[in-house]
Amino acid sequence: MDQIKTFQMEGMIAATFTPMTPDGEVDYDKYDKYCQHLADNGIHQIYVNGTTGEGFSLTLEEREKVVEKWIEVGKKTGRITKMVVQVGALNMHDTIALVDHALSVGADAIATVPPLFFKPKTLDYLVKYCKEVANAAPNIPFYFYHLPSVVGVELNNEDFLKAASKEIPSLVGIKFSSKDLVDLIGCVHVNAPNRDSKRYNMLFGCDEMVMSGMVMGAQGGVGSTYNFLPKVIQRIMDKTKKGETADALADQYLVQKACRVMYKYGDLLGNNVSSLKAIMPLIGMDLGPARSPLRPPTAEELESYKKELLEAGMDKW
Amino acid sequence: MDQIKTFQMEGMIAATFTPMTPDGEVDYDKYDKYCQHLADNGIHQIYVNGTTGEGFSLTLEEREKVVEKWIEVGKKTGRITKMVVQVGALNMHDTIALVDHALSVGADAIATVPPLFFKPKTLDYLVKYCKEVANAAPNIPFYFYHLPSVVGVELNNEDFLKAASKEIPSLVGIKFSSKDLVDLIGCVHVNAPNRDSKRYNMLFGCDEMVMSGMVMGAQGGVGSTYNFLPKVIQRIMDKTKKGETADALADQYLVQKACRVMYKYGDLLGNNVSSLKAIMPLIGMDLGPARSPLRPPTAEELESYKKELLEAGMDKW
Amino acid sequence: MDQIKTFQMEGMIAATFTPMTPDGEVDYDKYDKYCQHLADNGIHQIYVNGTTGEGFSLTLEEREKVVEKWIEVGKKTGRITKMVVQVGALNMHDTIALVDHALSVGADAIATVPPLFFKPKTLDYLVKYCKEVANAAPNIPFYFYHLPSVVGVELNNEDFLKAASKEIPSLVGIKFSSKDLVDLIGCVHVNAPNRDSKRYNMLFGCDEMVMSGMVMGAQGGVGSTYNFLPKVIQRIMDKTKKGETADALADQYLVQKACRVMYKYGDLLGNNVSSLKAIMPLIGMDLGPARSPLRPPTAEELESYKKELLEAGMDKW
Amino acid sequence: MDQIKTFQMEGMIAATFTPMTPDGEVDYDKYDKYCQHLADNGIHQIYVNGTTGEGFSLTLEEREKVVEKWIEVGKKTGRITKMVVQVGALNMHDTIALVDHALSVGADAIATVPPLFFKPKTLDYLVKYCKEVANAAPNIPFYFYHLPSVVGVELNNEDFLKAASKEIPSLVGIKFSSKDLVDLIGCVHVNAPNRDSKRYNMLFGCDEMVMSGMVMGAQGGVGSTYNFLPKVIQRIMDKTKKGETADALADQYLVQKACRVMYKYGDLLGNNVSSLKAIMPLIGMDLGPARSPLRPPTAEELESYKKELLEAGMDKW
Repeated sequence: MDQIKTFQMEGMIAATFTPMTPDGEVDYDKYDKYCQHLADNGIHQIYVNGTTGEGFSLTLEEREKVVEKWIEVGKKTGRITKMVVQVGALNMHDTIALVDHALSVGADAIATVPPLFFKPKTLDYLVKYCKEVANAAPNIPFYFYHLPSVVGVELNNEDFLKAASKEIPSLVGIKFSSKDLVDLIGCVHVNAPNRDSKRYNMLFGCDEMVMSGMVMGAQGGVGSTYNFLPKVIQRIMDKTKKGETADALADQYLVQKACRVMYKYGDLLGNNVSSLKAIMPLIGMDLGPARSPLRPPTAEELESYKKELLEAGMDKW
Repeated sequence: MDQIKTFQMEGMIAATFTPMTPDGEVDYDKYDKYCQHLADNGIHQIYVNGTTGEGFSLTLEEREKVVEKWIEVGKKTGRITKMVVQVGALNMHDTIALVDHALSVGADAIATVPPLFFKPKTLDYLVKYCKEVANAAPNIPFYFYHLPSVVGVELNNEDFLKAASKEIPSLVGIKFSSKDLVDLIGCVHVNAPNRDSKRYNMLFGCDEMVMSGMVMGAQGGVGSTYNFLPKVIQRIMDKTKKGETADALADQYLVQKACRVMYKYGDLLGNNVSSLKAIMPLIGMDLGPARSPLRPPTAEELESYKKELLEAGMDKW
Repeated sequence: MDQIKTFQMEGMIAATFTPMTPDGEVDYDKYDKYCQHLADNGIHQIYVNGTTGEGFSLTLEEREKVVEKWIEVGKKTGRITKMVVQVGALNMHDTIALVDHALSVGADAIATVPPLFFKPKTLDYLVKYCKEVANAAPNIPFYFYHLPSVVGVELNNEDFLKAASKEIPSLVGIKFSSKDLVDLIGCVHVNAPNRDSKRYNMLFGCDEMVMSGMVMGAQGGVGSTYNFLPKVIQRIMDKTKKGETADALADQYLVQKACRVMYKYGDLLGNNVSSLKAIMPLIGMDLGPARSPLRPPTAEELESYKKELLEAGMDKW
Repeated sequence: MDQIKTFQMEGMIAATFTPMTPDGEVDYDKYDKYCQHLADNGIHQIYVNGTTGEGFSLTLEEREKVVEKWIEVGKKTGRITKMVVQVGALNMHDTIALVDHALSVGADAIATVPPLFFKPKTLDYLVKYCKEVANAAPNIPFYFYHLPSVVGVELNNEDFLKAASKEIPSLVGIKFSSKDLVDLIGCVHVNAPNRDSKRYNMLFGCDEMVMSGMVMGAQGGVGSTYNFLPKVIQRIMDKTKKGETADALADQYLVQKACRVMYKYGDLLGNNVSSLKAIMPLIGMDLGPARSPLRPPTAEELESYKKELLEAGMDKW
């Protein structure tokens, strides 16, 4: 259980894309170059098979192969220090299979969204669910993945941590993808009896306001924009830590402006993942399109998208 | 395409449970008796692997086996006239596999929820998604499964039908599980160019107000309470058709009262499916508990549940 | 208290507009002709100073004068049999003043929305509020005005009636402006200890689905479209009562189509009241524009609006 | 127009309570002492007749008298440097009357909520409304009061500022009472053509996360807790400005803990204003209860409330 006592992620964690061929099959040949791209930009911690990774659009087999591929390139290059695998699926059998697999291949930690279909209306149910997932591999650090805007579960996370702290010995923290910093500050201060620090590890998921998440106590950030504007994020984090928040704000606004453009196109294409992925070729790291049900931008859409990204300051990334 | 021109469901369609052993494995031995129970109560049309059937809690293999089992008992007994298979899954690969399977085993129709994770914010995206699913088997009638309270997609269905009528030649109707009768009446009147009746087949999914769905133009009802109070539903439908709505209302109120109790316990147990399933042994047709992440009621909860059901008029079912 | 024991409204109740001059002042000269218009169309029951009446856009003095005017024309013509005055305001002092005034001038009943700013999150608070309003004139029948889409209070009305039945002796019913017929059927069956019928008087407020409200137990309908398509509403009500719901449905669809157009323009103008009011000149009963903050349609908007209304079947009203 | 070019509020702005007698009448005798209490705690800027001031529970006359009273004690003591009057009411006539009054008595600025009943669904309508209010006194600085959790208007404020900048010459900023810091950072950077700084003045309204609002660019905070824990707020603001955010966080958590208790009791009493007001006697500055429809805590509730406040660190205020 030493793992759980001390496991901690800080700074930048990339929510990784899943590289695809033009026709939407996983493109395993891209991983080496992608890993190098991240490492070259100072990113050594990754969050795999979450929203950005289209984890919920992959089959069980693909999800496992993606994890194996990351493990492989991580070992080969020695440039991935920590890797969290998102194991949430539609049914418990698949989720447990993914936990078993993550454990067997040596992932550093796991995370799960709440039940996606039979959605919790009570904390009891949510804790019970997370407990069942976590207990399938009690020695691997477990994160709860809070994603209310997509999943629709809006239960208070401070209360969740208090309840879960008694039930889930492997709980180490939350990937917190919500704008509700009032809830975040509560989470930051909950007692973690199973941890040396007595604190849970809070990873903030809203790139457009990551600096405010950090001042409110998050130790790290998990984001998709880290894939293409890592230097901006790094500057925000560095300056925020030093207390130079006025300077950080200018960079933060750069991210916010970019995101407004990305989300506008994302709504058209089905989800932001598609518009975000469309940026990667623009920075020389083509990872292909998003898989159906999402669609890539048309040539015309891409043209206006690029124009708006430039207006939003893309040249300053 | 004759199938699509004329396929129509009317009256009672049971949203079937998936029988389970006490430890939550699918109990294939129960299907014969369950089928007979439905038929004895006048139910010959079924909706398989939807919400009530815990379709989203089953693995791909289980979902296929469940469909096969229904086909098998249907053939054996000749008592199932129409069977719709819900094929919506978390990823498109699985959904297409389920479509292919439904087609290969001879299901009468398919239905799907919207994308469960990358949720549509535009009609275009929703139509594109349904088209991709429907086109995987263009000769089998296709229903859209509208379930906003769970899925969180609230797009207008009248507009969906208008747009989809140009894109999906196999579209035959909607399983409409929403209280919004203003939208329903619109759907009822949309022109269906691919149908002899020129109308889409609207199946209403709110048992507690099924009579109002019928007067607003739904031709049939798909419900879970049909499993244990079919006589009440039959009376409601018969009287409503004859215009004896005041009489039907008394029976409708019986359903509404029962549902309020069931939903109260359902919230505790994770979802109504669990509290609904717990009623089946009480009418002599034990189908086991709901699978995790749902939990069955404790002995104590069951006692108070039964008491409240009786107070709500269970003896009049 | 005999009033309260037997007070009942049934059939058509018009939510009256407040006539305005072109510059948005109340036009008291229009009331005679307006009253005659309603009576000529079979409408003798009115609901004054609600949403349609722009009650919340009028000053206290104007609201009182509007009530007095209706009383005056009602007495003169003998054509108004029942008049409910909506007394809800932003502060309790004004609301009580309106109750006192309604009582003093001889209104038949009062109604109120929930607190508009400090919105109830508990039934206790909502009941306490209504009790305070009702008790200001305990001998005048009191209706609760349920309007969740505007006010944002979504508490269950069946539960409200059960709790309020013990606290508010003058409670006679609810103006129920919600699509939730599951809640309506519950309300219809709550025991009213203070009433000869032992039932509360449920008045349904969604014109586009009024027939379904009636089959689910509402005794009357309160609507704004009654001002300009009363014959359609009358046919719907008559046929629905006779059990000829298929025939009623055709007329109901006519209302639904009209409302879709009206709401589309209403969103542009600030609220439906403005687009609804713009219809009155088209039927020869000009009541002027809606007051600011709403705006009337521009000449161009009016042109396309009329066109769309015609396409939606305006000639069949 | 010099006023508008340079008007700016920074640091602590108290959302003032309205003192009441035990039976809920405005207690004008308390203002002197209350003003001194604020000034003694370093607060010289006030926001009057907003949510905390129960502005929406007061009559028009009371609202005006409250403003006059503040002007009077401000003049007498010289301790109020800036005073914003919230003029939003249910109808435009009253709102304009309040604007005229604020101007005539010499208030420094005005603010308004969006239309409370006919709620905007478009930016055009919201801008038109604010323009009409602001134009009633074009030389007094105008703030928009963004309060989505209560009012239900969720339009984007960055877009509002961009549109309003062309229409409302007296617009100086927003009282921003939302947790959405992504919107805030956008507002902070909108060009204000009518201002010397070319920036709008953003006042953040969520006390429990005020430090994150400040790092994201708000220049001041408007809050109700400033009435009873001003030293904590002052420490948060001072440390945050100096970049000592880790230290500020401890104080921020103190506010968050207090608010969780206050909101819990607020829900019981009708609104937080009632539970917040109940704290004032505990710090020696009794301002009476909140007016109906709110209710004060019972003796028993007060006892447990105090206990929970202590557990939440009240002794450290």
